[in-house]
Amino acid sequence: MDNQQIGVIGAGSWGIALAYLLSNNGHNVTVWSRSETTVEKLRSYHGNEDKLPGVKLPESVVYTSDMKIAVEDKDILVLVVPSAHLRETVKLMKTYIIGNEEHKQIIVNCTKGIEDDTLMVMSDVILDEIPGCNVCVLSGPSHAEEVGKGMPTSIVVGAFEKDIARYIQNVFMNSVFRVYISPDMLGIEIGAALKNVIALAAGMADGYGLGDNAKAALITRGIAEIGRLGMAMGGKFETFSGLSGIGDLVVTCASMHSRNRRAGILIGQGKTYQEAMDEVHMVVEGVYTAKAALKLAQKYEVEMPIVQAVNDILFNSKAPGDALNDLMLRDKKIENNSLDW
Amino acid sequence: MDNQQIGVIGAGSWGIALAYLLSNNGHNVTVWSRSETTVEKLRSYHGNEDKLPGVKLPESVVYTSDMKIAVEDKDILVLVVPSAHLRETVKLMKTYIIGNEEHKQIIVNCTKGIEDDTLMVMSDVILDEIPGCNVCVLSGPSHAEEVGKGMPTSIVVGAFEKDIARYIQNVFMNSVFRVYISPDMLGIEIGAALKNVIALAAGMADGYGLGDNAKAALITRGIAEIGRLGMAMGGKFETFSGLSGIGDLVVTCASMHSRNRRAGILIGQGKTYQEAMDEVHMVVEGVYTAKAALKLAQKYEVEMPIVQAVNDILFNSKAPGDALNDLMLRDKKIENNSLDW
Repeated sequence: MDNQQIGVIGAGSWGIALAYLLSNNGHNVTVWSRSETTVEKLRSYHGNEDKLPGVKLPESVVYTSDMKIAVEDKDILVLVVPSAHLRETVKLMKTYIIGNEEHKQIIVNCTKGIEDDTLMVMSDVILDEIPGCNVCVLSGPSHAEEVGKGMPTSIVVGAFEKDIARYIQNVFMNSVFRVYISPDMLGIEIGAALKNVIALAAGMADGYGLGDNAKAALITRGIAEIGRLGMAMGGKFETFSGLSGIGDLVVTCASMHSRNRRAGILIGQGKTYQEAMDEVHMVVEGVYTAKAALKLAQKYEVEMPIVQAVNDILFNSKAPGDALNDLMLRDKKIENNSLDW
Repeated sequence: MDNQQIGVIGAGSWGIALAYLLSNNGHNVTVWSRSETTVEKLRSYHGNEDKLPGVKLPESVVYTSDMKIAVEDKDILVLVVPSAHLRETVKLMKTYIIGNEEHKQIIVNCTKGIEDDTLMVMSDVILDEIPGCNVCVLSGPSHAEEVGKGMPTSIVVGAFEKDIARYIQNVFMNSVFRVYISPDMLGIEIGAALKNVIALAAGMADGYGLGDNAKAALITRGIAEIGRLGMAMGGKFETFSGLSGIGDLVVTCASMHSRNRRAGILIGQGKTYQEAMDEVHMVVEGVYTAKAALKLAQKYEVEMPIVQAVNDILFNSKAPGDALNDLMLRDKKIENNSLDW
């Protein structure tokens, strides 16, 4: 395929890793950050020394804090800002987005989360700000640190139209970055957002001293309850068994790259979530997503015992040990109610 | 419930861990081993010092090499021998099994594997030897080392009849051992047997130096291909997303307790499977299951690229790096073909 013009909106670790991938695939990449100070640092280091040290982008990559430059004439916009800044960033983009039928720019959403007050997934926030825009999502088990080193990674792209999914697959795929496609955008986004709550729980189990058996059960039952919610919202069961569901959850729960898991470990050892966030030195998305997940569980009337336990530990001063033990002592259950005897 | 009379047939690490669980639940437990020398050691240590050191069973537990004593008058027989010895062990049991309608003994199969020449799962081997017997299965993420220390564990029991599943759930469940029930015996057994092949692949990826992203993708795509085969054989999709599917796979791929993973690491570093087995000092079930899985894939005409890659590495002298890279370079795929655009 011809080289595409791509704007990467957001210059954190995942934004830089994707800019690295896309520029190495031969595309012309412009990286946007809202801060001119950051842009100057990006330009002199050819990357983000603080957030993804060691990863150097090609000389050809352009850096800007001017949204007009980042968006105009681009075929694809890769949106990868923290979830709390997504709506305001899309507001900045919308003036420059072209929406005519002949050349509709495609927004690839890589931001994971649930908007706190509206309970919307990120692609719905984008559509809310730019109705009718061409949005798709990219997700899966993909630590930026590894993508930035060219280590093998597999992810999934979800889109409303198969042709769009195929086009994005062609743009991103190479010999170490394998891209699958899926029609289930909502399922992909729900899994991506809620996995951080289960990663917190898995970290708490580690910190409290539970073993591999309990953690595997938390991961398995965690994706089961995410799937129950996701299906109630319109997602597909298969997606939660896929790369953006269990795959992303496994990598998040196993790795010390994950700040959600690291924060969970500290909380499991008895710290408050504020102490844990201070020690991890970063925003821990799962703390905010835990609240949103509980609201969604109530709204859709879905039983989510692990989400409830995480909320009890974070916000109701319940001791991690008590909450984790209570999970074990629930009623005698059928593993999956959809299977008949 | 009243105390049950239980025979545990097999005194390896998992047999002893289950005897520990069941005797602590108040049941009367008899442990059988085929070797009188082993029985004497079990009796003097109150456990298996070689295979599960540190775990001491109550004084009340009986040890025997006499199958009559192990089977007669028991309500439940927990079968937990290596898969290669299952058929001959069931042949020894069948003389003493009671099959009348009033008091049918229940066999709880805990052995995981596929019989090499018949390609049968273990419960089918049992039914083949004792037609009409009352067999169910128990599986899930459960390192014996952790169950033997009373660490929290969740597993699933599959049975043809719900009443039987409920009864076995009541016998095994306690405050640290959570038992779910399921009607999908076949799905449980397929997942349990084939997970060792994917664990070998995950170990090879570790040994070869791939990262967390690639391993999470192998686990996710691994359970997807196990599920494809399992469904072709009559199992249910949901089961492969459950404790005996992805749960057991996660615990096996994450932990150094797993000899399949440990052998995989050595093979990924360039050793042959024979050298790896010699170094691990144990039978590595996944090596044998890999062959059976490939035969099943061919029989049911199911695409299993990871199983194929593991076979190529083990038996066709393919370099692990080449096989793992080839997995990344397959066609551009749809994540799950059952979802429609």
